[in-house]
Amino acid sequence: MVRLKELAELVGAQLIGDGDCEITRVAPIDQAGPGEITFLANPRYATKLGDCRASAVIVPPGVDNDRHHLLVCANPYLAFARILKRLQPPVDVPREIMAGAQVHPSACLGEGVCVHPGCYVGRDVSIGRDTILYPGVVLYDGVEVGEACVLHGNVVVREGCRLGDRVIVQPNAVIGSDGFGYAPDGRRYVKIPQVGIVEIGDDVEIGAATCIDRAAMSVTRIGRGTKIDNLVQIAHNVVVGEDTIIVAQVGIAGSTRIGDHCTFGGQAGIAGHAKIGDDVTIAARGGVAGDIADGQVLSGTPAMPHKDWLKASMTFPKLPEIRRDVQQLKKQLAELESLLKEK
Amino acid sequence: MVRLKELAELVGAQLIGDGDCEITRVAPIDQAGPGEITFLANPRYATKLGDCRASAVIVPPGVDNDRHHLLVCANPYLAFARILKRLQPPVDVPREIMAGAQVHPSACLGEGVCVHPGCYVGRDVSIGRDTILYPGVVLYDGVEVGEACVLHGNVVVREGCRLGDRVIVQPNAVIGSDGFGYAPDGRRYVKIPQVGIVEIGDDVEIGAATCIDRAAMSVTRIGRGTKIDNLVQIAHNVVVGEDTIIVAQVGIAGSTRIGDHCTFGGQAGIAGHAKIGDDVTIAARGGVAGDIADGQVLSGTPAMPHKDWLKASMTFPKLPEIRRDVQQLKKQLAELESLLKEK
Amino acid sequence: MVRLKELAELVGAQLIGDGDCEITRVAPIDQAGPGEITFLANPRYATKLGDCRASAVIVPPGVDNDRHHLLVCANPYLAFARILKRLQPPVDVPREIMAGAQVHPSACLGEGVCVHPGCYVGRDVSIGRDTILYPGVVLYDGVEVGEACVLHGNVVVREGCRLGDRVIVQPNAVIGSDGFGYAPDGRRYVKIPQVGIVEIGDDVEIGAATCIDRAAMSVTRIGRGTKIDNLVQIAHNVVVGEDTIIVAQVGIAGSTRIGDHCTFGGQAGIAGHAKIGDDVTIAARGGVAGDIADGQVLSGTPAMPHKDWLKASMTFPKLPEIRRDVQQLKKQLAELESLLKEK
Repeated sequence: MVRLKELAELVGAQLIGDGDCEITRVAPIDQAGPGEITFLANPRYATKLGDCRASAVIVPPGVDNDRHHLLVCANPYLAFARILKRLQPPVDVPREIMAGAQVHPSACLGEGVCVHPGCYVGRDVSIGRDTILYPGVVLYDGVEVGEACVLHGNVVVREGCRLGDRVIVQPNAVIGSDGFGYAPDGRRYVKIPQVGIVEIGDDVEIGAATCIDRAAMSVTRIGRGTKIDNLVQIAHNVVVGEDTIIVAQVGIAGSTRIGDHCTFGGQAGIAGHAKIGDDVTIAARGGVAGDIADGQVLSGTPAMPHKDWLKASMTFPKLPEIRRDVQQLKKQLAELESLLKEK
Repeated sequence: MVRLKELAELVGAQLIGDGDCEITRVAPIDQAGPGEITFLANPRYATKLGDCRASAVIVPPGVDNDRHHLLVCANPYLAFARILKRLQPPVDVPREIMAGAQVHPSACLGEGVCVHPGCYVGRDVSIGRDTILYPGVVLYDGVEVGEACVLHGNVVVREGCRLGDRVIVQPNAVIGSDGFGYAPDGRRYVKIPQVGIVEIGDDVEIGAATCIDRAAMSVTRIGRGTKIDNLVQIAHNVVVGEDTIIVAQVGIAGSTRIGDHCTFGGQAGIAGHAKIGDDVTIAARGGVAGDIADGQVLSGTPAMPHKDWLKASMTFPKLPEIRRDVQQLKKQLAELESLLKEK
Repeated sequence: MVRLKELAELVGAQLIGDGDCEITRVAPIDQAGPGEITFLANPRYATKLGDCRASAVIVPPGVDNDRHHLLVCANPYLAFARILKRLQPPVDVPREIMAGAQVHPSACLGEGVCVHPGCYVGRDVSIGRDTILYPGVVLYDGVEVGEACVLHGNVVVREGCRLGDRVIVQPNAVIGSDGFGYAPDGRRYVKIPQVGIVEIGDDVEIGAATCIDRAAMSVTRIGRGTKIDNLVQIAHNVVVGEDTIIVAQVGIAGSTRIGDHCTFGGQAGIAGHAKIGDDVTIAARGGVAGDIADGQVLSGTPAMPHKDWLKASMTFPKLPEIRRDVQQLKKQLAELESLLKEK
């Protein structure tokens, strides 16, 4: 339970109403009740406040409302995220190596680390303070995990890979699997040992069952603050910049370099050895075959400016008709030409 | 070993032949031998029975055959499924918490529950009778699992999620991973805590390495009888109705609502915040960007009526020629026009 | 540390320079230093050798260079793969069943097998000599694993499936999950028990979080030497030939048969019940709806000859213009025709 004035201070909002009002939870605008706070991101939906039973509402400037205590701030969605975090009960796990965990004696664990049963921590692993390993996490030899990380159930991090601070890894994600590299020997393939590693920057989040392959000889790198959704494939030697968003089921092929603050929509695919600039947006299911300059917003396969793709793809259902029209035009024109010749 | 008349009764089939014939196994029509039963779903393939060495065959009405004992019924495929199930040996697992499993003392397990080594069952978890947890299953605190469920190896169910009765979860699936939600703070992203849950209805099946994200604040819901294949992504706040089929590698983005008895072909993608009606079919690899009314059968990207997509996509290889034709037509027409002016 | 002449012998290369030179590591051409060997696959990039500080370089015939010791051979990339393997330190794991592993007394393990903590080895499992199970591997009853295999963390192999020799399975892959088969019963679906198995040939590699479903009644089969990347879906009853390459996120639907020495690019999709010949290449994201003859190189959706797809897809952005042109042409032509009639 937190007083409203404390929340106002936390997010730097202007408080209109009773700052001593006690808030226990955050709830969606149509479900919130007494003691709860909700938010209104868009002033257009201000009429929704009419029926809203929340005690307090986070609103953008310019929303008047007598029925609720208000926190007025420029970015209600961001304030909501921060308040939600503040109101969460602290994670209640034992700060110890629990019975049933296997930790190599050479491993170096900071204070406040929690290792659940069924975890395996290999030789020379280091884990920063306050990091939590949920059950079944496997850290191969030489892995380094920073402070205040959360590795969820059955995550595997292979040998020598490094995670920064405050990294969150959802269940069953894999970091450091072998890159997919083979040398042809006639019709057969010989595996190229993948002796590089993966490095994950601070504040990165990695989704469930996402796979990030270790580099062939160097480093596959995910920059600070980048957020990766579920079931994403990141191949060997890929370098992703900072604050980039990669939505579920995206695939990024080997050795591609991606800039900062990009967004890749779900199921998009990026070819290997491509260079993607900063602030690039690829819409869901877009297919990128080569380099992309900074700031482009692309869609479709092959990727093209988003508006062009919308128009182009709207034409698809008309194609059979266009084809018939062209045949017909050729015929008519030929007739016309011969008619003209006769004259 | 079961007598044929018992199987006839099980599936409500008409028995033609010796009801005391003993059946031990089900086998494909071209591999079945004595003591085995097979099935013929389509009368068109009745000639296959000529070489078939099975003792008995499940057939639709109107198939005559002297060489085999017959079970005649309207839906041979369904009868086959039921008979196959009847003939399977019962699952042979110890109905107990096995050594090497970690079960919190506050967890409440029904009779006949099997917990394999390497499983983790958290605080206040409840598990209904006859449910089986294979090795490495991780149930976070507060999870509820119904009766007669099967959770295969290394499945993870995160805190507070609920599974109904007779739910089957294939290995390495993830239920309740965090939804992918962030609030921009300048160029950086702040995680929005995902405090909702996932609810899985009765008789649902979830494929290997499939990920179902917990809701941001409410419930991600999979309706009774829905079947989900491998490597499927279901984002936060999605609601899927009953008896819907979702084939492998489909992605369903956040907050989308899907009706009953739909079918999504493999690798299809559904945008966020869409409303998909009942009895909708999206063909494999279809891309759905918005709402779809009941009963539509769609294909392609953007999704369009299946027949339209077939015709449109068949036109793709002709496009360069069509383009040249149009250029040529423009030229010819311009010449013709100037010729005509001269006259 | 290995002498250069030993490496020359290993790969059958011509040695130019000091055979007693000691090599400790392999490194990329721009990072290699003294004591290291690198490779030059393409003579076009021979100028890169100017700045290269490696002690030795693997080169194709015809590359002259005074600054380095050279290993000259027809296939430098293959030689590099073999030398990299030779220089890797041997895997340092205890050749025993480690504390915290659960191995059924009926299981039969060869010499030199390593079973890490957290592994589960079921009844009647057999494991060939020198195979390594990393932590959290789950082998259900009756699984057979050959010699010198490596099963990485949290891999699950379900009942009765068989792996050949030297098979590598990356973390969290699933072998033998149930195929996706249901018989409709009115609007509901009845599960068809999947009683077949998966058989994996020798020298196969399977990527992280890849799922290979067991057959309905027979065998899902992956042929010798085939390499499968991460997050790939292989459905029930699929048969893949030998030395085939399947890149990440590919989906192959049920009962499809694939020949030898094919290549499937990332995110490609192959429909069910298709027959794909030998030496077929499907480019990344290609969609295959039916049978493909030997040796085809296809792209796009629907899959077509690669060059046709490149040309066709380049036309997409022009489609709105083509459509307008056709409308305009129809109008002009009609005017011309009526003008002509008047004359």
